[in-house]
Amino acid sequence: MTPNIAKLGHVALVTPDLEESTWFFRDVIGLKETERVDNTVYLRAQRDWEHHTLSLTAGERAELDHIGWQVRDPAHVQAFADRLEDSGTNVEYIDDDEMVGHGDTVRFRTPNGHRFELYYEVDKPVPPSEKRSRLKNRVHSLADATASIPRRVDHVNLHGSNIEEVHNWLQDVLGFQMNEYVLDEEGNVRGGWLSTNSLVHTLAYGGEKGDEDATLHHLSYYLDSLGDLMNAADVVREHGVEIEGGPGKHGITQANFLYIRDPGSGHRIELFNGGYQIFNPDWEPIEWDADEAEVGLTWFGNTPGQESTPSK
Amino acid sequence: MTPNIAKLGHVALVTPDLEESTWFFRDVIGLKETERVDNTVYLRAQRDWEHHTLSLTAGERAELDHIGWQVRDPAHVQAFADRLEDSGTNVEYIDDDEMVGHGDTVRFRTPNGHRFELYYEVDKPVPPSEKRSRLKNRVHSLADATASIPRRVDHVNLHGSNIEEVHNWLQDVLGFQMNEYVLDEEGNVRGGWLSTNSLVHTLAYGGEKGDEDATLHHLSYYLDSLGDLMNAADVVREHGVEIEGGPGKHGITQANFLYIRDPGSGHRIELFNGGYQIFNPDWEPIEWDADEAEVGLTWFGNTPGQESTPSK
Amino acid sequence: MTPNIAKLGHVALVTPDLEESTWFFRDVIGLKETERVDNTVYLRAQRDWEHHTLSLTAGERAELDHIGWQVRDPAHVQAFADRLEDSGTNVEYIDDDEMVGHGDTVRFRTPNGHRFELYYEVDKPVPPSEKRSRLKNRVHSLADATASIPRRVDHVNLHGSNIEEVHNWLQDVLGFQMNEYVLDEEGNVRGGWLSTNSLVHTLAYGGEKGDEDATLHHLSYYLDSLGDLMNAADVVREHGVEIEGGPGKHGITQANFLYIRDPGSGHRIELFNGGYQIFNPDWEPIEWDADEAEVGLTWFGNTPGQESTPSK
Amino acid sequence: MTPNIAKLGHVALVTPDLEESTWFFRDVIGLKETERVDNTVYLRAQRDWEHHTLSLTAGERAELDHIGWQVRDPAHVQAFADRLEDSGTNVEYIDDDEMVGHGDTVRFRTPNGHRFELYYEVDKPVPPSEKRSRLKNRVHSLADATASIPRRVDHVNLHGSNIEEVHNWLQDVLGFQMNEYVLDEEGNVRGGWLSTNSLVHTLAYGGEKGDEDATLHHLSYYLDSLGDLMNAADVVREHGVEIEGGPGKHGITQANFLYIRDPGSGHRIELFNGGYQIFNPDWEPIEWDADEAEVGLTWFGNTPGQESTPSK
Repeated sequence: MTPNIAKLGHVALVTPDLEESTWFFRDVIGLKETERVDNTVYLRAQRDWEHHTLSLTAGERAELDHIGWQVRDPAHVQAFADRLEDSGTNVEYIDDDEMVGHGDTVRFRTPNGHRFELYYEVDKPVPPSEKRSRLKNRVHSLADATASIPRRVDHVNLHGSNIEEVHNWLQDVLGFQMNEYVLDEEGNVRGGWLSTNSLVHTLAYGGEKGDEDATLHHLSYYLDSLGDLMNAADVVREHGVEIEGGPGKHGITQANFLYIRDPGSGHRIELFNGGYQIFNPDWEPIEWDADEAEVGLTWFGNTPGQESTPSK
Repeated sequence: MTPNIAKLGHVALVTPDLEESTWFFRDVIGLKETERVDNTVYLRAQRDWEHHTLSLTAGERAELDHIGWQVRDPAHVQAFADRLEDSGTNVEYIDDDEMVGHGDTVRFRTPNGHRFELYYEVDKPVPPSEKRSRLKNRVHSLADATASIPRRVDHVNLHGSNIEEVHNWLQDVLGFQMNEYVLDEEGNVRGGWLSTNSLVHTLAYGGEKGDEDATLHHLSYYLDSLGDLMNAADVVREHGVEIEGGPGKHGITQANFLYIRDPGSGHRIELFNGGYQIFNPDWEPIEWDADEAEVGLTWFGNTPGQESTPSK
Repeated sequence: MTPNIAKLGHVALVTPDLEESTWFFRDVIGLKETERVDNTVYLRAQRDWEHHTLSLTAGERAELDHIGWQVRDPAHVQAFADRLEDSGTNVEYIDDDEMVGHGDTVRFRTPNGHRFELYYEVDKPVPPSEKRSRLKNRVHSLADATASIPRRVDHVNLHGSNIEEVHNWLQDVLGFQMNEYVLDEEGNVRGGWLSTNSLVHTLAYGGEKGDEDATLHHLSYYLDSLGDLMNAADVVREHGVEIEGGPGKHGITQANFLYIRDPGSGHRIELFNGGYQIFNPDWEPIEWDADEAEVGLTWFGNTPGQESTPSK
Repeated sequence: MTPNIAKLGHVALVTPDLEESTWFFRDVIGLKETERVDNTVYLRAQRDWEHHTLSLTAGERAELDHIGWQVRDPAHVQAFADRLEDSGTNVEYIDDDEMVGHGDTVRFRTPNGHRFELYYEVDKPVPPSEKRSRLKNRVHSLADATASIPRRVDHVNLHGSNIEEVHNWLQDVLGFQMNEYVLDEEGNVRGGWLSTNSLVHTLAYGGEKGDEDATLHHLSYYLDSLGDLMNAADVVREHGVEIEGGPGKHGITQANFLYIRDPGSGHRIELFNGGYQIFNPDWEPIEWDADEAEVGLTWFGNTPGQESTPSK
C-alpha cells in the first residue's frame, strides 16, 4: 500500500498577541471562528468543512507550531509512520483525545526541521443554522460573510536550507509530486512547488542560499473571484493594515495574489485566486532557470518581502 | 436660465410590512440605515453621500409614494417651479423643516400621475467613525459591508400610459435627454430611457398599450463589479428570497442586471453593473424597432416579469 | 492494482455541418484548432496540453461518437480492460497508429450504450512559437485569444436510462466517486455527479424516467473568471448565436454556467466558471431530495432545455 | 452663455518609431485602427464613437503634440475662443478641412505650455459590417476583440510647473471643476484632479516642485471589468512588454489601475477600471494633506514611476 496525503489540513501558528491576531484573521481577513479552547482560537474559511484550517495559540513569540495534513485513508496514518521510521525519522503518536478537531495523529519533523502532523479523522462541525448555507454542498452561508471572503485553505510556503534534499524527501517519503521548480545561477534548485492532489501546489519549499532555519513564508487561502480578491485588499486597507505584496500574478502557479502580514504576529497570509490545476497524469515538472525565474516569480504586480517566521 | 436636474435623489416607497421590507433592503440587499423617524426608515448605498436614496414608510399597501430629484443649483428649484406652472402643472411648495434629509422642495405630478419632488439642499450625514471609510472620497468603509455591496443609487423605471406625451413632457419641462427608445409593431414608442446626466438613463418610462396606472417597475442600485453582482445574487438566495430575473445583460443600456422583489411589499429592485455613459454632446437617440427590440431588451439572460407597484 | 482514470480526455462529436460547427467551436467559442485530418477537426482550449479535447467529424447527423478518458498509469489501460471483461463488457483494442492524438486504446460501451475510450499516452503538440505562451506552464499565449477564452475541458453530461445501475457500474468498474445526486418524488435517483479527480464532477449521468437512448446533454469547458464568462456570452450574441441557458449558478456543483448550442449540429456546450473541488478524502455524497432539487439544480438564473443529441 | 467642455476628445502623440508604437497601442493594448493618413495612425477604443481618441504621428522624438476636447455645443467653440483671448491667451483658428476626424477647431496653449484643441464636430465612422456590433448602442463588436479590451478613452494626466496657477486657469477659463487635490508638506498644491463631466477626472495636473516642462505623465483608457484589466496585464506580458505599475488601486479617483509604457516611444498608458463619478451638484473638493497623500495616491498595489514625455 502506498499511503497518500489527501490535502493540507491546518496550519498551527503561535502569536505573541492572540487578540490582535484573532482580530486580523477573523475580522479583517474574514475567517470564521469555530471555537476557542484555552489559549487557542480555531478558524476556518467559508467553505472549509473541517473543524479548523488555522489555529492561533498565545505564546511568547511568533512561531509556526506545525502543519497538519489529512491522509486519504485511515490506514495511511500508520503506513506513513512506518515509512517515516524506515527512513530514519522519529515519529510521535498522539491519541485522538489529546487533539482538538482531528483524530489519531503522527507527528514528526521534516529533514529541515518543520513539524508536520498526519491524521485521517477530522471533526466537521456544522455551523449554527443561521450561519449555515442553504446549499447542502456548502458550509457557511454567504449571507454570513463580510466583503472579504476567503473560501478554502490552499497551501503553505516554507523556507529553509538543504533544498534539494528536502524536495527529495518530500517526494520519496511523503509522496509529493514536484510540479514546478526554480534554479539559481549555479543551476541549484532554489525552490519547488509540490503537491499530492490536483492543486499545482499545496506545499512550496525554498529559500536563499545560506538560510538555515525552518521558517514559514506564508499560508494561503483561496478566493473565488478577482472581485473577491480586490474587495479583500480594500477591506484590509480600510482596517488600516498594509498590503505587503500584490495584487499581482505569479507566473509559477499562475496565482493572482495578495500578501498581508498579521500585525499581531508578523505571520504572512497570501490571498490567492486563479492558479491552475494538474489533471494530466504525465506531468513533467516545469523547470525555470535563473534567467526565466523573474518572469516565473512575478508575471506582473509587486512581490512581497522575504521575511519569514520561525518554526517551533 | 435653463434649470437642470443633477441626479436622482431618492425613491420613497410605502410598504405594508415595514419590518420585512427593512430586513430585505438593509440586511439582504445591503443598504445602510441612516435613521428611522416615526414610521419611516431611511436608507442609502455604501457610497451615497446624501441622507437617503430610499425611504420605506409603513402603510396599508405597497405604493410608490414619490421620487425625489436633486437640481444642479439652488435657484433651479424655483426656476423649475415656474416652468411647471407655465406648463399647467400644479406645484406644491414644502419647507425645509417638513422634510427629512433635504431642503426646500417643490412637489408635483407628471402628466401620467407619478409624484416627483425637486430640491437642491441635502443633508450628508457622516457615518460614525467605525463605519466611515479611511478614504476621504468615500462614505462607508468596505470593512462595514456584507457580501452584497450596492454602491450607489442609479435609476428608476416607471410604467404608465401616454408614453410619447410623457416622454415629450419629461424632455420639454424637466430637461431630460432621450437616449434610447423602443417601438412596437405599429411604430409607436413603447418605452424610453432618459437622463439628465451622463448615465445612459436615470429614468425609464414605458409600458404596454392599455396600461393606465402610474406604477413603479423597479428602482435600481449600481454595483462595482461582476463579482459583487454574483455575490449579491448568492446572498439573496441564501436568505431564501427569489431572483426574479437575471443575471443577464440588457442590450439597451448594456446593463448587467439582477431583479429581486422585496418579499415585504412586492416592490422590485434591480442590481446593476456595467452599463454605459454618454459623454458625447452630439448623441442621437438610439431607436430600436419592434424587430430589434428583443435583442435590445435582453441581450442574454432571463428578464423579469412586468408586475409593477402602483403610485400613490 | 486498482486502475484509475486521471481525467476527461476528449469528446468526439459528429456533425452534419462540419464547417458551421468548426466556425462555432473555434471562432465563436474560442477553442484552438490543432489540425484537420480528413473529415475531422481537432480542437482544444487555451490551456489544454493534449492534442485535442474535442473532435468534430463530418457525418450524416449530429451524434456523440465517443468520450475518451486518460488513465493515470500506462498499465491501467490493460488493467481496466481486464476489469471490464470480468464485468461482462466487450472490449475492443485499438492500436496507437489508428489513433490521432493518443496512444493504445481500449474502447467499450457503458451499460446504457455510451461509447468510452481509455488510454494513457497523449500527444502534446507545442503551438507555433508566435502562439505559444511565454509562461512555460501554459500552452497558448493569451495574446493569441479572442474575447471568449475557454481555458480547459471540464466535464461531460450524459443522459440515458437505468440511472442507478449505470451509476453503480461507473463506480464499481471505472472507479468514479459519486459526489452529489438528486432524487425524484418516488425517491429514485434522477441524476448523479461523479468524478475520478478533485473536480466535483467530470461526468454527470441522469435523465427523465422513460428515457431510453444514450445521449449527450452537454460537454463543458472551464473559464477563468466571471469577466471571461460574461464576455463569452457577449461574443456568442455578437455572432448572432442564442444563449440557451444562463448566466446562472447551479447549486449542485456551484457552477456559474452558460449554455449554448452549436448551430451546425445542435450539440450543447456549457461554459463553466467557479464550481468547487473536493479534496476531503472522507466525502459523503450530497443527497438532494425532490423538494431540494430545484434549489440544487438552479440556485439562480435560467437553466437550459433537456434536448440532447444521440450516441452513435 | 457659459461654454462647456463635454469630453476629452483625443490625445495626439508623436513617436520616433511609428511601427512599434502602432503595434503597441493596436496589437498589444487592443485599440482599433480607424485609418492611417500620411504619417499618422488614428486609433480608438472598442466603444469610442468618434473617429479617433488617439493619434500617433512619426517624428524625431517622443512628444505630446496636443490634446483635443469636444465642447458641448457648436457655439461653444467661438465662445471659448473669446474667453481665451479675453484672458490673454493666443488662439489659432483651424478650418475643418485641415483636420482629420473633427471640424472647426481653436488651438492654444495652457499657461504652462500644453497645447489644447477645442472643437464640436466629430466624424463618427461606422466600422465595416463584420466588425460592427449587433447592438446599435455600441460601436465595435466584442467578437472583433482580443483578450485586451479597452472600452473608451478616460482622461489625461499632465505634469508641469505653476500648479495652482494652472489649476485656477483651468477652472476660470475652461470651466473645469476641481474634484480632488493633494498638498505637499508646506501646504502647497502638488496635484489636482479636474473634470467637466461626471467622471471624477478627465484631466489631472500636477508635478514635483522645480518641474518646468509641460509633459505627459499618461493617457488613460477605461476597461469594463477587473477580468478585462487582469487579462490586459497578461496580454501585455505575453507580448514581452513590462507592466510599469499595478495592478493596484488609487485612493484618489478610486481607480483600479495598470500602467504600461509604449516601447516605441516611452509614452505611458494607464488602463483603468472602477473609479467613481460625481453626480452631486454640491461637491466639495476633497483635500488630501501631505500625511494623507500616501493613502490617497496608492490605496494598494505599486505605483508607476514619474518619468513623463515632453510637450511639443
